[in-house]
Amino acid sequence: MNPTDQKKFAPIGHKRWAIAEGYIPETSHGPEPEMTSHESICVLNASDQEAHLQIWIFYADHEPVGPYSVSVGPRRTKHVRFNNLKDPEPVPRGTEYSSLIESDTPIVVQHTRLDSRQSANALISTMAFADTEAVM
Amino acid sequence: MNPTDQKKFAPIGHKRWAIAEGYIPETSHGPEPEMTSHESICVLNASDQEAHLQIWIFYADHEPVGPYSVSVGPRRTKHVRFNNLKDPEPVPRGTEYSSLIESDTPIVVQHTRLDSRQSANALISTMAFADTEAVM
Amino acid sequence: MNPTDQKKFAPIGHKRWAIAEGYIPETSHGPEPEMTSHESICVLNASDQEAHLQIWIFYADHEPVGPYSVSVGPRRTKHVRFNNLKDPEPVPRGTEYSSLIESDTPIVVQHTRLDSRQSANALISTMAFADTEAVM
Amino acid sequence: MNPTDQKKFAPIGHKRWAIAEGYIPETSHGPEPEMTSHESICVLNASDQEAHLQIWIFYADHEPVGPYSVSVGPRRTKHVRFNNLKDPEPVPRGTEYSSLIESDTPIVVQHTRLDSRQSANALISTMAFADTEAVM
Repeated sequence: MNPTDQKKFAPIGHKRWAIAEGYIPETSHGPEPEMTSHESICVLNASDQEAHLQIWIFYADHEPVGPYSVSVGPRRTKHVRFNNLKDPEPVPRGTEYSSLIESDTPIVVQHTRLDSRQSANALISTMAFADTEAVM
Repeated sequence: MNPTDQKKFAPIGHKRWAIAEGYIPETSHGPEPEMTSHESICVLNASDQEAHLQIWIFYADHEPVGPYSVSVGPRRTKHVRFNNLKDPEPVPRGTEYSSLIESDTPIVVQHTRLDSRQSANALISTMAFADTEAVM
Repeated sequence: MNPTDQKKFAPIGHKRWAIAEGYIPETSHGPEPEMTSHESICVLNASDQEAHLQIWIFYADHEPVGPYSVSVGPRRTKHVRFNNLKDPEPVPRGTEYSSLIESDTPIVVQHTRLDSRQSANALISTMAFADTEAVM
Repeated sequence: MNPTDQKKFAPIGHKRWAIAEGYIPETSHGPEPEMTSHESICVLNASDQEAHLQIWIFYADHEPVGPYSVSVGPRRTKHVRFNNLKDPEPVPRGTEYSSLIESDTPIVVQHTRLDSRQSANALISTMAFADTEAVM
């Protein structure tokens, strides 16, 4: 397809998403980084604007930490590993958390974990919870 | 971040959630409590009020049992293992159930099970079903 | 709790649900029936009326089969294995299908599969898709 | 059931769906094609019209590729493996992507992955994200 013919996609998604479950296992089996235990959000930005995300991590026993800033280009996907978030601080392993994702452009967010604590890996995935009323 | 600068989060979530699937496997492999077969709800309370939850457990052959009372602090997450619920009575293992979660503050609820009946664990997770019309 | 004090629950759920994914693996490992490869729907009926469900199974290459009739008592859960549906005909193994669930009372439906084709079982679960506009 | 008595189903679903997570593992264990690592969408078309789908694949580092054209007959299900999409080009293995599914008829879409990189397979499944406002 000629770039000048690039299809325009109608917006899809929402600007605020939450994931109540969060946990990066402390141990792993198998080759890194592919089989390292990890938790990630997969983000689809089907719009024609760059999406600027702010991620907040909520904990059981202290105030939320954030914002972690992530950008997703127009008509692009990005798979963000929580393991790799560094600023303002790394997300601790073996700790329960929740996350809130705010974007200036509608996006779709899906949550996935690879758990390789045992020799056979386990996977979970679910659509994140969309705040359908957010106007930002 | 200075506590006096703590970000305020717009409310997100709903006050009533249901999980139709429920089952705590009777057996486990691996170190306890991390790898014990369990079922849990992960709750995000992004609001500035403490959330007071009442959980009801529905069974196949007798009346629902509850309420189990759980609190989640403002701007906090809590991962609640059904295995650990005790009052009014423990949730039996190897028994099919459903659950209903009612809160006085909007929350987000996600359901997760770790099944370690076999040597390699299996995981499931899904967002709970939100009653989007609940006014409590 | 005294039976005469039984809590009344506000209705929760919808009357039409769909599950696009359906597949009962042909083989299993581990003790039956607990570890038999199976696919099930978990139904929560929090209302005070018995719910009468009609399930239709959609196939890739022929007309839908149904209705399969299932009842769920008031304030009860029921886990229905597709493996056990018999009338009008059993659901074939190793065959791709989808399902549609219609109820005369609002219910919540969750889909789960246990796949024990290999020695370590795998699990999936997701909330079914609710038809939020159904008036029946 | 006599074909002339075939039940008519009220429409269910939506015309636009998105799946943010996408990844076909590069390796597999077990007999092909059943246990080949794959990712698929399961589509239910409960309507009386053939559904014409256009699938677009979004990548991290270049423009979306599509449309992949898929048809699902009236009152039929179809399980579409991303592994098998060929035109305009195959979906690469070991690469992160998202997908957008547009249909001229309401459908229900569910996302599933079988990951058999290790000797015990892992499975994920979740309902896709529905664009509830799409009018096409």
